[in-house]
Amino acid sequence: MQTAKHDLMRNTNTLSILECIRQFGPITKREIQVRTGLSWGAISNIITDLFNKRVISETKSAESLIGRIPCKFDISNNDNLIIGVDINIEGLTAVLIDLKNRMIKSAKINIIKNDRDGILEQTKQIIHNLIKDSNVNKKKIIGIGVAMQGAVDAEKGISIFSPHFRGWQDVPVKDMLEKEFNIPVLVEHDPNCMALSERWMGAANGVNNLLFIRLSMAIGMSIIINGVLYKGLDGSAGEFGHVTMNPSGPKCSCGNYGCLETYVSGNNILQKAIEGIKIGRNTVLSGFLEHMQDLELVNVIEAARQGDDFACGLFDEAGIYLGIGISNLISILNPDLIIIGGEMIKCEDLFLKRTREVISQKAWKNSRVNLVTSRLENNSAAIGAATIFVQKIFSGEMLDVVS
Amino acid sequence: MQTAKHDLMRNTNTLSILECIRQFGPITKREIQVRTGLSWGAISNIITDLFNKRVISETKSAESLIGRIPCKFDISNNDNLIIGVDINIEGLTAVLIDLKNRMIKSAKINIIKNDRDGILEQTKQIIHNLIKDSNVNKKKIIGIGVAMQGAVDAEKGISIFSPHFRGWQDVPVKDMLEKEFNIPVLVEHDPNCMALSERWMGAANGVNNLLFIRLSMAIGMSIIINGVLYKGLDGSAGEFGHVTMNPSGPKCSCGNYGCLETYVSGNNILQKAIEGIKIGRNTVLSGFLEHMQDLELVNVIEAARQGDDFACGLFDEAGIYLGIGISNLISILNPDLIIIGGEMIKCEDLFLKRTREVISQKAWKNSRVNLVTSRLENNSAAIGAATIFVQKIFSGEMLDVVS
Repeated sequence: MQTAKHDLMRNTNTLSILECIRQFGPITKREIQVRTGLSWGAISNIITDLFNKRVISETKSAESLIGRIPCKFDISNNDNLIIGVDINIEGLTAVLIDLKNRMIKSAKINIIKNDRDGILEQTKQIIHNLIKDSNVNKKKIIGIGVAMQGAVDAEKGISIFSPHFRGWQDVPVKDMLEKEFNIPVLVEHDPNCMALSERWMGAANGVNNLLFIRLSMAIGMSIIINGVLYKGLDGSAGEFGHVTMNPSGPKCSCGNYGCLETYVSGNNILQKAIEGIKIGRNTVLSGFLEHMQDLELVNVIEAARQGDDFACGLFDEAGIYLGIGISNLISILNPDLIIIGGEMIKCEDLFLKRTREVISQKAWKNSRVNLVTSRLENNSAAIGAATIFVQKIFSGEMLDVVS
Repeated sequence: MQTAKHDLMRNTNTLSILECIRQFGPITKREIQVRTGLSWGAISNIITDLFNKRVISETKSAESLIGRIPCKFDISNNDNLIIGVDINIEGLTAVLIDLKNRMIKSAKINIIKNDRDGILEQTKQIIHNLIKDSNVNKKKIIGIGVAMQGAVDAEKGISIFSPHFRGWQDVPVKDMLEKEFNIPVLVEHDPNCMALSERWMGAANGVNNLLFIRLSMAIGMSIIINGVLYKGLDGSAGEFGHVTMNPSGPKCSCGNYGCLETYVSGNNILQKAIEGIKIGRNTVLSGFLEHMQDLELVNVIEAARQGDDFACGLFDEAGIYLGIGISNLISILNPDLIIIGGEMIKCEDLFLKRTREVISQKAWKNSRVNLVTSRLENNSAAIGAATIFVQKIFSGEMLDVVS
C-alpha cells in the first residue's frame, strides 16, 4: 500500500513537472519549483529520471559576466517521436511529430484496394515509408496513434466497423500494428482526433468547452469539456447523428426513425436524390435514371450549385435539420465553440446559411453562438491521433513507453 | 508577477491540503505530506494558517506506550457554519450545516404573501429564526447559499425571474441578504443545488458525470461533469426544456415552437387539459368548464389515476416526449446517471413507464441507461445551496471568508 501510494504520488508529481516543462520550457529547476511547489529533492529525482529517459533535454550551465547561469530543461525534440495515421476512405495520411507536436515528416496516399487486407497492407506500407523517408533512427519512435472512421473501441484498440471498407469488422488495428512495428499503438475515433487538432493548432486554440461535428457520409461528434475529451460512461458520447429529430421520420441505418443523420449526412442526401429520381421528380439528375449506380454525392452537389430546385431542396432540408440539431446542442451545453468539419464542409455554400438562420431563431436566447467551419489541412486527424498519444504520455497513462 | 505566482501556488497547495483533510481527516501532517507530495515547510505554514482561521481543528499529540502519537488534523466541526435556503413556491426551507456538510439545524415554513416584499421578508425571518433556534454563536456563520427557481444570474447573485412569484424580476437577492446579515451570500439555480445534494447524499454519491432533470411546472436541468457543475459559456447550459422536439409543435413560452416543455411540464399539461375541456373532450374534468380557474394539476393527476382516457393521454404524451428527450441526452452525453427530481415525480406512476419504454427503443444502443427518480427529502435544494458555498471555499474562490 505504502509503495503504491508513493508510486501514485511520484506519478502525479512527474506529470506536473512534465506539463510545466512542456508549457514553460526551457525552464530552470528553480522556476519549476516555484511553479509546482514541489520539494527540491523530489524535483531533482524526477528530472534525472526524465533526462535519462530522454523525455527532456538540458542546456548546459555556463559562467557569464553576472555569474553562473543555471541549466534549463525543455522537452526533448528529437527523441521520443510519435507517428499519427488517418485511415479514411479519402486516403491514408501519416505524420511524424515530436512530444511538443512539431511536425517532422508527413505522407499521403490513395487507397488502392478497398478491402480489409488491402487497407491494412497499405497502412503498414505508409508507416514504413514515413520512417524511411524521415531519416530518423527507428528506435526514437515510441508509438503510433491511429484515427479511424466508424465505430471504435479505443480501450481495446479495435476498429469495430467502418462504413466504407469491405470486410471490415472488429479489426484489431492496435494488435496488428504493434506486431508489425513493436511499439505501442492507440486507436481513436476520428472526430476526437480532429477536435484535439483544432485545439492544438486550429480554431479551438485555448478553447476549453468545444463541440466538433464531423459531417461526412455519416455524422460524428467529439466533445471536449475543460480541455479534455469527454467520452461518457461507455465511450459512446457524441452520437449526435442519432438524436431523434422526428419520431415519424425516415428509417435510419441504426434502426430508429427520424435520426438527424437521415436528414443531414452525405449518404442520406444521396439516397434521397436516388429516390427522387426514381419517382420522377423534375431534376437535371434524372439523366442518371438508367445508370443509378453512377450517381455520386458530387453530382447532387453540382446540380444544386447549378440551381436545380430538387437538389437545392435536399441541401436546404439538411441545413434546417442541422440548424435544429445544433440549436438543441447549444440549449443543452452552451459550448464556447462549435466547429463543423468533415467532407461536407466542401459544400457548405449549399446549406450552412440556412443552418445559421435556424440557429438564430431556435437556440436558447441567453446563449452566445460561436459556430465556425474547420480550416485545418487534411492531415488534422493524423496529427490529432499522434497528439492523443502525446497526451496519454503526459497524463501518465503511458509514461513507461518513453525510451 | 512573482508575488502573484506565489499567491497562486500557495492557493493551489492550500486547496490540495484542505481536500486531503476533508477526505481523509483526522490525518497527521506526515500523512498529508505523503498524499500531497508538498514540502514539510509549505504544509506547516498552510496548516498553521488554516488552524488560525479555524477551518481545521487538531487533536493534541500524546505519549503512548509505543512512543509519541502525533496530532491529527480534521475539518473544524463547529466553526465556519453555512446556511442554505430554498426559496420555492412550495415553501421556504433553511438549513445550517458545517464545512463537512453535517446538518446542525433545519426549518421550513409556508409562503404567506406571494409577492416580492412578502417573500423577501419571510426569507430574512426564516434565517433569523434558524440562527436563534440553533443556539450557535452568530459569528461562526460565514455565509448563506440560496437556491432559486426560474432564471438566475449566479455571478451577480440576482434572481432574474421566478415564474410563481408576483413582481419578482431582477431581484438582487445576494445584495439584500448580505446587507441584512453582513456575511457573503451566493445565489444558484435550484437544479444545480439539487444535483449537488444528490452527489453528496443521494443517488449520485461518487458519480462523476450526472444529469439532474427537475420536472415541475417548468423543466430545469443540471449537468455535472467530472464531479463539477458544468454551466457553459454564458451559464445557460441545461436548458433541456427548450430543445426542439417538433418544429411544427405548439408555441412555447420562450417564443419557439415544439419545445420539450410544451409537452412535458406541469404547466403545459394543465394548459392542455383546459383546452381539451373547452373544446368538449369527453373527460371527468369537464365539470370544471364553468369555473376553469379552479382546475389545478392535481385534478388532472386524480382524473388520470381514476383511468380518465383524456387525462391519461396527456401524461402518456408527456412520457413519450420525455423519453425521446432523454434518449437524445443519452446519445449525446452517455452520462453515468440521470436523476429525475422535482414535483412531477409525485405522479411518476402516470408517465415514467412510457418514458422508459421509449428510451429502451431510442437511446443509442451502445450506451447503458441508468435512470432513477430522486429520493431525497424536500430540503435537498437548501442543503445543495449551502454545499455550493462549501465547494467555493474548498475550490479557493472564497477562501478569504473563513474566520
